[in-house]
Amino acid sequence: MNTYIYGVGTSNFGRQPQHTAHTLGWEAVTEALRSAQVDSVDAVYVGTVFGAPGVAQRTVHSLGLTGVPVITIENACASGTSALVEAEAAVASGRYERTLAVGVEHLTNRFRGGLHPELTDADGAAGLALPGTYAMVACRYLHEGRVTERQLAMVAVKNHRHALGNPRAQYSGEYTVEEVAASAMIADPLTLLQCCPISDGAAAAVVGGPRGVKSDIRIRGIALRSGGLWDHRSPHVWGYQLVADTARTAFESAGIEPADVDVVEVHDAFTIGEIVSVDALGLCPSAGAGAATELGETAIGGRIPVNPSGGLLSRGHPLGATGLAQVAEIVVQLQRRAGRRQVDGARIGVVETMGGGVAGIDGNACVVAVLG
Amino acid sequence: MNTYIYGVGTSNFGRQPQHTAHTLGWEAVTEALRSAQVDSVDAVYVGTVFGAPGVAQRTVHSLGLTGVPVITIENACASGTSALVEAEAAVASGRYERTLAVGVEHLTNRFRGGLHPELTDADGAAGLALPGTYAMVACRYLHEGRVTERQLAMVAVKNHRHALGNPRAQYSGEYTVEEVAASAMIADPLTLLQCCPISDGAAAAVVGGPRGVKSDIRIRGIALRSGGLWDHRSPHVWGYQLVADTARTAFESAGIEPADVDVVEVHDAFTIGEIVSVDALGLCPSAGAGAATELGETAIGGRIPVNPSGGLLSRGHPLGATGLAQVAEIVVQLQRRAGRRQVDGARIGVVETMGGGVAGIDGNACVVAVLG
Repeated sequence: MNTYIYGVGTSNFGRQPQHTAHTLGWEAVTEALRSAQVDSVDAVYVGTVFGAPGVAQRTVHSLGLTGVPVITIENACASGTSALVEAEAAVASGRYERTLAVGVEHLTNRFRGGLHPELTDADGAAGLALPGTYAMVACRYLHEGRVTERQLAMVAVKNHRHALGNPRAQYSGEYTVEEVAASAMIADPLTLLQCCPISDGAAAAVVGGPRGVKSDIRIRGIALRSGGLWDHRSPHVWGYQLVADTARTAFESAGIEPADVDVVEVHDAFTIGEIVSVDALGLCPSAGAGAATELGETAIGGRIPVNPSGGLLSRGHPLGATGLAQVAEIVVQLQRRAGRRQVDGARIGVVETMGGGVAGIDGNACVVAVLG
Repeated sequence: MNTYIYGVGTSNFGRQPQHTAHTLGWEAVTEALRSAQVDSVDAVYVGTVFGAPGVAQRTVHSLGLTGVPVITIENACASGTSALVEAEAAVASGRYERTLAVGVEHLTNRFRGGLHPELTDADGAAGLALPGTYAMVACRYLHEGRVTERQLAMVAVKNHRHALGNPRAQYSGEYTVEEVAASAMIADPLTLLQCCPISDGAAAAVVGGPRGVKSDIRIRGIALRSGGLWDHRSPHVWGYQLVADTARTAFESAGIEPADVDVVEVHDAFTIGEIVSVDALGLCPSAGAGAATELGETAIGGRIPVNPSGGLLSRGHPLGATGLAQVAEIVVQLQRRAGRRQVDGARIGVVETMGGGVAGIDGNACVVAVLG
């Protein structure tokens, strides 16, 4: 059965200590239900990484959505889009008529006392937190000549500029390449402005079938994969193969080619993340994502605008909410409601979310969705 | 499409600091796959409450199950059976041919530094941790004459005795009612031996359709509900209505009456939990669960044996694994493989899991499954 996104909603993004995960969720869901012109759903899938048990129930019960199944889903940074995958499958299979996918995360309160790695976290003990992992990917790309430090910095310049048009973004601004390069070094070669911030936020989408739909945003294809064991002989950097495989599945099921994509939100937790994702999605087959960024092809107004919302780097990265924030952005773009950051003529949009990683695995999860 | 449990597996249960969540998961999944006589599945649903991000991937990747979608599900103490609900629906709808539901929890390592309530946990701040909530339920039942202190203690006596036949149980033993009553007071009227322990453990089930099935354990009905907002005018104690509603849905979809049930595993996180659950399931309609316990009806050899595994009280309660540990017990009972704790003539078995609770809500989630 064809599935549609009836409506989307988000909270603001940023450090919001006056909020809790479920009050942010309330804002996002309220907006999504209003936009969808519905007041009930048959099941709720809530993506969160560090949300306390019960946060999903608190969110939806405060809206009066009681009695329906509520399922919390964790899939690292792909939790929000993993919730969408399950919400979509439940409608597509006829199990439910209408479902709600929500992502919520409140990192400020959760880690108010500081962020302590799990005692059993071997990766953390080895320094392989995600900034380090992405930095190693950047080094490999630099070494192979697939990107330059200038091009990496230009991703940060572009996304912070895009966010100037997004009133809900956590950060925004006009930076120069030199300013990005001169910001504090976090994990060589990634400087502060090349790393996503700690964010609180929520986002939601109502999914349903063709009956009674008032939206023309169809989920043309959606795929979820978890990574394989890392093969040290791979010619690709960490995560590339997982994104490429997931994208191929989603594109095939949508019946599109990469060249058909008009606008995309990708997982730029770090600047190198955007570069690798765009390459793996096949969006810049000739020059590669690095050169395309330098040529302005991935900016709003360019050939294939990437992260018009400002991306994780600038809109913010509330882990479990991120995937659905990306979805909300693409839906708003396709509905021509994006205001100053509108991508002209956008008919087909893509979301790509890359979920975390533990030692020896090519990513916990990747979700790619094709909307249009 | 009819769905079957192809096979089940568990780890040992107890304090296992030498293990991690994913090594326990490895044990459970290995046993489940062997018992199911399969070596691959199309998707994995992992229930855990406090498992760190990535624990699901670590568990299944260490078995060589890579590339398939892996989804982590949290639904408080009903996480394991919520994973089963999603794994079953995915097969029933034809989305996947064969799925794996796993529950893992390692509380010892997770809370090695002590258990700190969330900073935003209003219930915890109010003293409404679950022992307190269940104690209030017990007080109400005592006040209404639906149970006696002796009957409550007899639940603990029975379940610790049942566990003598379960080599994987965390605790077991022959206790007297007086010994149970004399153990340390935790939350009046619930004494230490009436409260489930902190446990580490894992359990797993392989679910599939009729094609190629080698098992005759069918999932005849399964239902998941989340609780409604608490209505203080309700004549029922906390959780009762949610269990009763969920059971009705599951029983109807299975085409059975409570009187058809031969063996049951219920959510006895505290003795009063077993009493309320058995009442809500309608298993002792005349005398009520309290009197039935005193008459020996709920013991192995009685009319309707409850918690032959020893239950949460004695087998242990590794939160996210508990629901699937219950499922594993019922499957082993129906397959006549339960040894010293075998319930004679068991043809239809039921699992009931009750997931946590936050202020003002009648339970986060309840799952009831009918197997046979």
